[in-house]
Amino acid sequence: MLELYFSPFACSLASRIALLDAEIDARYHRVDLRSKRIVDGDIDFLAISPKGQVPVLRLEDGTVLTEGAAVLQRIADLRPESQLAPPPGDLLRYRLQEWLNFVATEFQKAFLYPTFMPDTPEAVRAHARTRVPRVLDLVTAHLRGNPHLLGERFSVADAYLIWALLLMPLAGIDLAGWPALTGYLERMQQRPSVADALACEQGLLQTN
Amino acid sequence: MLELYFSPFACSLASRIALLDAEIDARYHRVDLRSKRIVDGDIDFLAISPKGQVPVLRLEDGTVLTEGAAVLQRIADLRPESQLAPPPGDLLRYRLQEWLNFVATEFQKAFLYPTFMPDTPEAVRAHARTRVPRVLDLVTAHLRGNPHLLGERFSVADAYLIWALLLMPLAGIDLAGWPALTGYLERMQQRPSVADALACEQGLLQTN
Repeated sequence: MLELYFSPFACSLASRIALLDAEIDARYHRVDLRSKRIVDGDIDFLAISPKGQVPVLRLEDGTVLTEGAAVLQRIADLRPESQLAPPPGDLLRYRLQEWLNFVATEFQKAFLYPTFMPDTPEAVRAHARTRVPRVLDLVTAHLRGNPHLLGERFSVADAYLIWALLLMPLAGIDLAGWPALTGYLERMQQRPSVADALACEQGLLQTN
Repeated sequence: MLELYFSPFACSLASRIALLDAEIDARYHRVDLRSKRIVDGDIDFLAISPKGQVPVLRLEDGTVLTEGAAVLQRIADLRPESQLAPPPGDLLRYRLQEWLNFVATEFQKAFLYPTFMPDTPEAVRAHARTRVPRVLDLVTAHLRGNPHLLGERFSVADAYLIWALLLMPLAGIDLAGWPALTGYLERMQQRPSVADALACEQGLLQTN
């Protein structure tokens, strides 16, 4: 069985959405990202992935895969009939990779990561915030003519963007100035896999 | 003919290496990243890509593709016989995506981008530097048993890493403490596509 190493409301939430959407069974292991321990069994997470970040996907043959963009594509390709990623070779597949890279760099690495890391100096957080409006404007312009990032069909890139947008208010960014994004997020949360993943991780936060 | 929008020694250098390595003819358009103008013809670059960043690959049908990870995979797949990327579906393809995402986030977005952006506050640059040794250690540990990022074979992930490592000294990071990385970089520069791409962009810098 697949195994996903996650932390509630870390970017591994996108992988959980993808697994639920593709109806792939998996075993979920919660990681404490500060202590780098796996909560159940108090196991050293760095022995599984020296990067110490989530998501980590352990495949059935034991292969360990890291980095959201790779993990999400692997999950999608395990169940092609779910159409969570365009088929390899299709031009839209590169569009998917484009959006995965955009969310990974512009949302996550440039803003959400420094904002939520406890050791980030305030000047770094403040500078990261200055770049956010332009990023939100770019996504807004694209979603004006597209119900999803790839057009008509939901993909793992949406799962990743949903996570990033959900964290924006917690990171001090009011999305009210971007109604196309709040509208997108509301629509996306009506998708059962998204609603179920959110309910699951909210429940986990409360039990901590 | 393919068209690549680039700036000398920006991350588009990796795309140039890939194009040369795959022996794909392309037209190259130099972009002034500060003014967002294409140098030849003084054309508005934002009209081609609102993101205003390089690389941008314009395909033969006019499709515009952005983001290094997507552009590099597209180039590789245009010439499968060059084996610059494992075939789609192969487990190594996800490993490629993992490394592309790692270079994009940990090297480029977290460190090189803020370091070279002229408007970055000094406190932000200083904080970005603190995270570099751990990133270099992770790559070193991997390259200890692998001549390339994917093992025996050169891939577009190497093209991307080569660019990132080449910029390290210019960003004030002395790689002497990581001899596995300087050794890797020396070996990679003996590859004709890498040597030719570097010579080309060095020449362009001197003519500016």
